[in-house]
Parts: sequence; C-alpha cells; structure tokens
Amino acid sequence: MDELTRLAAIEDIKQLKHRYFRCVDMKDWDLIDTVFHDDFVGDFRGSATDPVTGFNAAPDATSEVIYGREATVESFRAAGATFTSVHHGHNPEITITSPTSAHGIWALFDTLRFPEGNMAEFQAYGHYHETYEKVDGAWKIKSSRLTRLRVDTFMR
Amino acid sequence: MDELTRLAAIEDIKQLKHRYFRCVDMKDWDLIDTVFHDDFVGDFRGSATDPVTGFNAAPDATSEVIYGREATVESFRAAGATFTSVHHGHNPEITITSPTSAHGIWALFDTLRFPEGNMAEFQAYGHYHETYEKVDGAWKIKSSRLTRLRVDTFMR
Amino acid sequence: MDELTRLAAIEDIKQLKHRYFRCVDMKDWDLIDTVFHDDFVGDFRGSATDPVTGFNAAPDATSEVIYGREATVESFRAAGATFTSVHHGHNPEITITSPTSAHGIWALFDTLRFPEGNMAEFQAYGHYHETYEKVDGAWKIKSSRLTRLRVDTFMR
Repeated sequence: MDELTRLAAIEDIKQLKHRYFRCVDMKDWDLIDTVFHDDFVGDFRGSATDPVTGFNAAPDATSEVIYGREATVESFRAAGATFTSVHHGHNPEITITSPTSAHGIWALFDTLRFPEGNMAEFQAYGHYHETYEKVDGAWKIKSSRLTRLRVDTFMR
Repeated sequence: MDELTRLAAIEDIKQLKHRYFRCVDMKDWDLIDTVFHDDFVGDFRGSATDPVTGFNAAPDATSEVIYGREATVESFRAAGATFTSVHHGHNPEITITSPTSAHGIWALFDTLRFPEGNMAEFQAYGHYHETYEKVDGAWKIKSSRLTRLRVDTFMR
Repeated sequence: MDELTRLAAIEDIKQLKHRYFRCVDMKDWDLIDTVFHDDFVGDFRGSATDPVTGFNAAPDATSEVIYGREATVESFRAAGATFTSVHHGHNPEITITSPTSAHGIWALFDTLRFPEGNMAEFQAYGHYHETYEKVDGAWKIKSSRLTRLRVDTFMR
C-alpha cells in the first residue's frame, strides 16, 4: 500500500474511534450504530475487574461476549441509561494490514457516575485491542477487547 | 481537495489546538496570541456548569461570550493568574471543508488548582465545538464553544 | 522535505511514543528496548517535584540524568517492579527538522499506585520535551526531559 493511503486510513480509523467515544458519552445511539461492523464482536469481560485485586465491579454486565452490531448498540443504550460517562482514548497504535483491514491498540481512561445505587463512581484505566474493516468505503470497528491496568470504585 | 492536503490540514489544526493547550497551562500569553483568529468568538458560558446538577462554579467569569483575539488573550491572562491549570485535548474529529476552513470537535479534561479562595480545585470533562480558518498560510481558531459532561468542584 | 514524508514521520514518531507508554504500563521491557536510541539521554530530575510547593516525592530516584539505552531500560525495569502505572500522552507537537531528526513536546498525565511503602499513590501532570532520530529506517527517542505542572501524592 502506498504511504498516502496508509496515512489516510490511520486518520479515518482514529476519527471512527473518536466518534465512538463521543457517541457513548453524548448517548447518541443512532450515530453509534454507524461505527460498528455488522458482525462486531465485543469482549468487555475484563472491563470492570481490577487486575491487581481481582474485584469485579459489574459481574452481571460483563459476563458474556457481545455479538453483532444491533445487540451491541442495545447493550450500550441500556448501560448508558444508568450513568453519566466520560471515555477518553489515548496513545493509538494503528496498523493497516490491507486496503480494507487494520488492527490497533488504544489506551483508555473512563469514568462513570451513577445517580442511584451502591456504586457512586467508577474510574478505570486500560487498553482496547481492536480490529477494523472497510465496508463500502467506510471503516468500521470489527472487534474490540478491553483489558485493564487498574479499576477504582467509589461506593455510597 | 486532494487527500494529502486534507491530511496536512488536519495535522496542522491538531498542532494548533495542542499549542493552545500548552500556552494556557504554561501561561505563555505571547504565544497564545498567535493561535486565535482576529475575529475569534469564544463561548465558554457552559464551561463551569455541571449539566446534571445545574451548579455553576464560576457564574461571573462565564456570563458572556468573548469577542476578538485581544479580549480573549486578556481574559485568559487574567484567569490564568488565579490558578495552576492542566488542559488535555482528546478524541479530535477534524473536518476540512475547504482549503481555508474547517470545523472540529474535541473532548476535554481540565483541572484547575486555586491557591486562594473558597474553591480549592475544579475538575471537569466536556467537548469543544470549534471552527478554524487559514489566514496567510496559518490555521487559526475562529470560534470555540465548550459544553460539559460533568463538573466537579472541591471547596476549602 | 515533501509534505507526505513529513506527515509519515510525524505519525511514526507518535506511534513510537505511544509504544513507549504501552511498554511502561504493561511492563514490556524487551519491547521498550526498541524505542530508545543507543545514546538516549533521560532527564527526569523534575519528574517527582511539584513546581508550586517544591516537594520532591522521590528525591533518590530522580537525582541524576540517565545516559544510554541499556541503563534507561534497567532503571525503568527496577522502578516498574514497585508500582502499577498509567501513562497517557497528550497534545503532541512534533516538528520534523530533517529526514532523520525531529523534536517534540507532549503533555503527560501519569499515576502510580504502590502496593507497599509510605506513598500509596502518585498523580502528576507535565510535559515531555524530546528529540528523535531515525536510525536504519526506524525512529528512536534520542532524548527526553520531563517538566511538571503539578504533582499530587497520597500517603498511607
């Protein structure tokens, strides 16, 4: 692949993931529907577990891998109704493997504030390990797996 | 516009905003003068208000839209004298609309520490909604509006 | 230098620094060996000192400039054994000065959690001031100096 195509793909994938973050935090569930591949696979099983202590702050919500764009958007919509969230992506390492495929690693900081329930706040740090595919001229997130460095919870 | 020109404009606008952040936190008021368009419009009226609680941590400082580069730099200089600040821009989505115009959205984390007064610290999350214009070969921030996801204040 | 070469160099240097951050936080000391120039110079003498209060949270670990790739990796390995860390780089301003040389400024947020000892957590904000050199086709970090805006420590 020529260098210009590679750089354009990297920028487009960065903007794809940035749009994902904005949709999550602004709860724009119609727009977030456009970022996922139809066959998206989301493995967020480690997303609430501190790797040092082993404590899982949300065992029910993180017990299963999510398959498909529609199920993913519904899952985000349901979770998003329970908190105010902030998700910031950092340190992207995007590798383009063909004109229509790529993979990448992102660092993540996210914090959730719950107006109700035992948990008042959740703050965590980790990495997304993702793949991307270009479908009909637009990059989509094909798969996403989240690993954690640290998970902090603040109870009421 | 060709792809190379688009990518160069995006990188230059990112560096423009990154220089803005560095100037604010390092209090480099001479250099920050170079990032704003002469007719800059800054709408920071929502910058200190938590959208969930409605609490405004700085009603006087955020009551009016700021017009013009000179008034903006003076306003930053005055505010900057009262705190130590950190401003980190994230998740940029920059769209180039012509060889000399662009718009963009950025996520923001910022924290202020006040050595004096009732408020000890201010920490907040939100989004910049901005326009850019290229003047005499250099991109400038033409307008900026800040919306918030969450505002936290820590009083003495 | 032509614009395409400039943009590719900037992206490659961003990914170099992002790999550095990932290696530090995932404690991948074999991979981090590939990011440093053989003659790397690391000036982290200001890394633990709050510029407002003057308090140095780690005077022993920050007393000397580190010279050379091997000594740097060993120093990172020794420090990394004592904490869980998160390092996020922000706001990069990378300037390419020749086909094989560049310099850049990055904003940093980092937080360390210590399972043992008097200090439970360390959180800080600052800037890296760095130079880069391309050696045998790969960009390397040639020098790095860290300055701080703010250092917060949480004792047991």
